[in-house]
Amino acid sequence: MGAKSYEYKKPFRLELGGELPELKIVYHTYGKMNASRDNVVWVCHALTASSDVADWWPHTVEKGAFLDPDRYFVVCANIIGSPYGTTAPQTPDPRTGEPLYGDFPKLTIGDWVRAHQLLADELGISHIHRLVGCSVGGFQAMEWAVREPDRFGELVLLATSAKASPWLIAADETQRMAIFSDPTYGEKRADAARNGLAAARAIAMLTYRSPEGYNNSQQDPPDLPAGGVHRACTYQQHQGDKLCRRFNVYSYVTILDAFDTHDIGRGRGGVKKALQRLTMPAIVVGLTTDICFTPEEMRELGAMLPNSKYYEIASLFGHDGFLVEYEQLNRLLTKK
Amino acid sequence: MGAKSYEYKKPFRLELGGELPELKIVYHTYGKMNASRDNVVWVCHALTASSDVADWWPHTVEKGAFLDPDRYFVVCANIIGSPYGTTAPQTPDPRTGEPLYGDFPKLTIGDWVRAHQLLADELGISHIHRLVGCSVGGFQAMEWAVREPDRFGELVLLATSAKASPWLIAADETQRMAIFSDPTYGEKRADAARNGLAAARAIAMLTYRSPEGYNNSQQDPPDLPAGGVHRACTYQQHQGDKLCRRFNVYSYVTILDAFDTHDIGRGRGGVKKALQRLTMPAIVVGLTTDICFTPEEMRELGAMLPNSKYYEIASLFGHDGFLVEYEQLNRLLTKK
Repeated sequence: MGAKSYEYKKPFRLELGGELPELKIVYHTYGKMNASRDNVVWVCHALTASSDVADWWPHTVEKGAFLDPDRYFVVCANIIGSPYGTTAPQTPDPRTGEPLYGDFPKLTIGDWVRAHQLLADELGISHIHRLVGCSVGGFQAMEWAVREPDRFGELVLLATSAKASPWLIAADETQRMAIFSDPTYGEKRADAARNGLAAARAIAMLTYRSPEGYNNSQQDPPDLPAGGVHRACTYQQHQGDKLCRRFNVYSYVTILDAFDTHDIGRGRGGVKKALQRLTMPAIVVGLTTDICFTPEEMRELGAMLPNSKYYEIASLFGHDGFLVEYEQLNRLLTKK
Repeated sequence: MGAKSYEYKKPFRLELGGELPELKIVYHTYGKMNASRDNVVWVCHALTASSDVADWWPHTVEKGAFLDPDRYFVVCANIIGSPYGTTAPQTPDPRTGEPLYGDFPKLTIGDWVRAHQLLADELGISHIHRLVGCSVGGFQAMEWAVREPDRFGELVLLATSAKASPWLIAADETQRMAIFSDPTYGEKRADAARNGLAAARAIAMLTYRSPEGYNNSQQDPPDLPAGGVHRACTYQQHQGDKLCRRFNVYSYVTILDAFDTHDIGRGRGGVKKALQRLTMPAIVVGLTTDICFTPEEMRELGAMLPNSKYYEIASLFGHDGFLVEYEQLNRLLTKK
């Protein structure tokens, strides 16, 4: 059940130029591959999550749930750049023994996909029964599926899109502005720019939780005096601090930059044409209050996929609803 | 037509404690008071706007428009703290000759209202035909109307609310986090924390323009290569720079802090009860894509006002629609 790792001891070339001299991929698996090798469910994690799905996605890796380890061989691999063990800005570079931090090369979604293809091959997984991607994990899932459509039995795309939208790119740029206004950004230490990173996380939380999320869970007591401390303020500070304890700014910027490059249609004649390659069954799930990937955008995504069904989950938690509404998700994704 | 000013040479006590030793109020007027003194339209401006309505609200102070200077005597006064001439953090304090910058006292919406009451009295305006407030200007309009309901013939409340919502307080706190992570915040100069202020403005733009705003106006050219510069990024940087050229960080934080104190129901038995005092006709206007003050919230506000009509303006510009959709607004606010 614990983290495992695969070391690819050859140079790994990157799409935007340069290479990683070697690549370590940290991953988790749950359950066992069956004899007919047709029970693999591969999960692509979201922005700041790790390969430990059971940790960040409550009540999904459980008996009867859609990632039931008694039925499925569930695999999730940590993306390049992320701080949970896979090669990242704070990993000592084998050429110098020193981490690259802010000099870590820029990545694309395709780089993440190629790393996970290497891992799937290493694990002897030729057929993936179901490929699940949520948020930026959905970017990877679509990119992987377009590259190797025959590898997958079914796609599950949750709160995601075929192309990074101007709105989300603007939100990422705003986070970078907050980070870069912390002058300790650039210092070669993993705990650089903590204030900037906390502000960036607070910006991201606005987009993850939506107006409804805050207005439903962060109301002040009715007797709060003018000038008193608002719950919403404490919440933003807390979310910023919490991310700083488990992440680092160079990983964060690396992942934001990769996010912004996502366009499934680039070099393929546009989004619609690229998605036509995905003829396997696809389940597309939107969330009623998501302002990252709005229900309208999710419906459009479903409509562009040749063999998809679209479902909408009612949630007051915005984009984060995909983590919170596990009961609705389990019902939806386990139905025959 | 140019800016005028009124100097109140006595101490002005503040609701959260302390005082301003004197108060200067800069204001604009358009048109003339008529003989029956019943044509005054008072406009309360939004967060970073000035008293020069004709400058920031295109095609409203015009013949045939709802602020037609041939028909109305239009008044708009700059709020305390804002950098357009009214007493503010960068104003030299008469006690020392030095600006207070970050030591400027904290304000409430009620302080802004009391300042504008002084000005109205000074101008001999006992009856205000129409009080117009947009965004945080609506906070002032409602607070003023609750304090002196008999002074106003009619209210026009655009994209605003009776209480600062947890969502908007969270957005303000996030902006403060970005500002405070710029270590030059606190330095006693008007151009301190420019990077932090630019990031804060970029955060605010996300909430002003909404997903629809960015996705409709900031699409990249279809041939943008991976790693290319996105229009949405340039836009955020530009908006940040632009605010830094016309504002200062201490004014900005002063206004955010005042924004967060807004609760029309505080000390009045709650929002509903306070709004019951507003029995004059009220026009409440929401915008279809506004995520600062959502159409649902605007409808609720309308429903709580005893004598109101609610209208919704179709816009792809989010909250900023109140500035952009002047044609729809003029039609709506000039109809008999």
